[in-house]
Amino acid sequence: MKPVQVGLIGFGTVGSGVVRLLTEQRELLSQRLGSDLVLKKVADLDLDRPRPVTLEPERLTTRADDILGDPDIDIVVELMGGLDEARQVVLAAISRGKHVVTANKALLAHHGNELLAAAQEQGVEVAFEAAVCGGIPIILALRQGLAANRIQELFGILNGTANYILTQMSERNTTFAQALAEAQEAGYAEADPTLDVEGIDTAHKLAILMSLAYGARLDLDSIAVEGISRLDPLDLQFAREFGYSLKLLAITRDDGYRVEARVHPTLIPRDHMLANVTGAMNAVYLTGDAVGPILLYGQGAGMMPTASAVVSDILDLARNLSLGVKRRVPPLGCEAALNSTRLIKPLNDLVTNYYFRFAALDRPGVLSQVSGILGKNGISIAAVIQKGREVKGAVPIVMITHEAREADARQAMREIDELPVISPPTIFYRIEDPHLHAAQI
Amino acid sequence: MKPVQVGLIGFGTVGSGVVRLLTEQRELLSQRLGSDLVLKKVADLDLDRPRPVTLEPERLTTRADDILGDPDIDIVVELMGGLDEARQVVLAAISRGKHVVTANKALLAHHGNELLAAAQEQGVEVAFEAAVCGGIPIILALRQGLAANRIQELFGILNGTANYILTQMSERNTTFAQALAEAQEAGYAEADPTLDVEGIDTAHKLAILMSLAYGARLDLDSIAVEGISRLDPLDLQFAREFGYSLKLLAITRDDGYRVEARVHPTLIPRDHMLANVTGAMNAVYLTGDAVGPILLYGQGAGMMPTASAVVSDILDLARNLSLGVKRRVPPLGCEAALNSTRLIKPLNDLVTNYYFRFAALDRPGVLSQVSGILGKNGISIAAVIQKGREVKGAVPIVMITHEAREADARQAMREIDELPVISPPTIFYRIEDPHLHAAQI
Repeated sequence: MKPVQVGLIGFGTVGSGVVRLLTEQRELLSQRLGSDLVLKKVADLDLDRPRPVTLEPERLTTRADDILGDPDIDIVVELMGGLDEARQVVLAAISRGKHVVTANKALLAHHGNELLAAAQEQGVEVAFEAAVCGGIPIILALRQGLAANRIQELFGILNGTANYILTQMSERNTTFAQALAEAQEAGYAEADPTLDVEGIDTAHKLAILMSLAYGARLDLDSIAVEGISRLDPLDLQFAREFGYSLKLLAITRDDGYRVEARVHPTLIPRDHMLANVTGAMNAVYLTGDAVGPILLYGQGAGMMPTASAVVSDILDLARNLSLGVKRRVPPLGCEAALNSTRLIKPLNDLVTNYYFRFAALDRPGVLSQVSGILGKNGISIAAVIQKGREVKGAVPIVMITHEAREADARQAMREIDELPVISPPTIFYRIEDPHLHAAQI
Repeated sequence: MKPVQVGLIGFGTVGSGVVRLLTEQRELLSQRLGSDLVLKKVADLDLDRPRPVTLEPERLTTRADDILGDPDIDIVVELMGGLDEARQVVLAAISRGKHVVTANKALLAHHGNELLAAAQEQGVEVAFEAAVCGGIPIILALRQGLAANRIQELFGILNGTANYILTQMSERNTTFAQALAEAQEAGYAEADPTLDVEGIDTAHKLAILMSLAYGARLDLDSIAVEGISRLDPLDLQFAREFGYSLKLLAITRDDGYRVEARVHPTLIPRDHMLANVTGAMNAVYLTGDAVGPILLYGQGAGMMPTASAVVSDILDLARNLSLGVKRRVPPLGCEAALNSTRLIKPLNDLVTNYYFRFAALDRPGVLSQVSGILGKNGISIAAVIQKGREVKGAVPIVMITHEAREADARQAMREIDELPVISPPTIFYRIEDPHLHAAQI
């Protein structure tokens, strides 16, 4: 059978992993594929940088056009990162009838609808297993393995940097700043960690997962996003006292009418499978109406795990090329997805359990004033901890609530923060605890 | 596009789930597929039994031949269970050029090579996602998602009944007999639990996973199997004192030359992801050379989870039928698998850590005699617990060893059991603890 030819644009960390797999595992891959897979050309602006793999100079180029314009190349792998240039490169590849593999979640979250529509028109594929959770085959699971299911809810720990920092803060009781500095030293966080710690990268990935779960257009802007950079280790301790872990979660849930779309620090029971996902690991926990709960767990980043996903996509496209078929499974699981949208539930309409930490000045009647305001706003209390330790002259009161509407919780917070006996701002986090929903005390 | 027509043989629990999905999710499935999926006929010997779904009488038959002989039916779903008749039905379907979906792990483990060879010859597919771990897409992951990897090791909790019993024994300190009785009452164990509790069902599934992981023929007979029916709750307690959980694991590991193939109760660290897989849940934890560690977790059995896997297979075959392609991915991941074997490491050559429990009569010098024999056989001790509680006139001494050869461990046990100060038989379990490998005390 005619060998399938691959061109790679972006010879950085993940690119080096892909080159390593395509060269060192070439025999294994051709056994699995039944024909040969050839890495024809690799483009990168900087060819002098030291890399963990070497390639013959004749396979290297500084010009992406050498790949885009090569009629022998069937599959273009975009690993250059960034937005505008990557978008141009992917559109150029599509317009020339080439299939595309990318690990670029920001590109997909921002320009995915445009790119996928262009691919649909040209009858080519855009594959992106590596864009979410590195080597964990979550895209494959949603597109194919769980295709008989309606996805009812999905929780993801989708950013290894944020999870590493939270794990350090929780296990070693350090501040965010200390944990971030250590993560940077250990190579788990970049010099500018904004995308990771502010939940933006997690939102990019959630947008992709939601499209697949619901068979609908990408909709990054509708996701409510809150990061972990203002997290106080005190709240991690209190969370633990209530039996919870605090994780940066991507959450979506389908009530049949609207879907939730949110990224924020979340308290989850310590015996939940996701609570045991520590360090830089990633995981997705989802519930399908037929399959029930499913967890997929693994390394969400890194050279070889991400390369593993890229090469599995290359193999998948190569199988189609060998058989002369195209778009056997549409990128978002069904062809109609790009014409389909889901109504998003505004955050104010969310109904969930809350964790509040009030800083109470040490005067009589504080608890009754606070709980009075909560009650007036329809919020009932499931558990309280009030401890003697003073923080900046105030005593923390921590409450776990029964289910309440977000708008009511925010209104109550505003009123409480105006009390003379409270030192604002009140801290609040959302809780995902199926057992608490039903509880009454 | 021409609708794809499905015939189902076996209208039991899982069959009812498949009927439910194919009827109730018909719109979702046809959206995903891009063409219609029709359940044309369902065969079962007993049509009068009450079922959770109903079908028009004209779609029901008591004769499998009505399905096998129907030229309109493209895909035959075998859910009748059992070995000989199921083998005949699958062979008949293959010989008539029909694709087959089955959830029958015993059939695959015993007759898989024959069935897959017949399918290869006829150019049809045999799909079996539902045969291992219910709705967890582990077959898909091994065949496609992780195809760029060599699988280095794989640990599975593959039988929900056994895991449920172990969880009950561990959490509630009950005997095996009590936990089994409760599992039977709760519907988690069958009247004859032999296949589940003796590790046989787990071995069937391990044989399938090994074939996929290594791209080799099925080889059930080479798997060493030990069940949980003789487990003493005392050992679950001691395991916990050493920081371990005891699980019935399927284990395979590739040293590049030979592969391990074993099913037995195994001690794993309590902070291992698999230790948190409780109740009737299943999970597979594997390491690929590129992707690193991966865990897939979910319900391993039950009507709808298993039906979810069956229908994902039907969809996959239907996509190929719609496009006019066959065997896009061979059933075992590569066409050469059926001509390929892996050398199995005999259990006696295994090198691992051991847990020993000796029943020592209360006389001086017992510990020195026991550790002398261990030392003579090249086995060094990593940790010991000796406690005053008497069991049948003897005091338990529990030891955790450094890595030792299985043959040496067995020889030492034989010698120790002949000591007058020991009341045989000594209990031993294998440990999988990556941290212990390197430890020295």
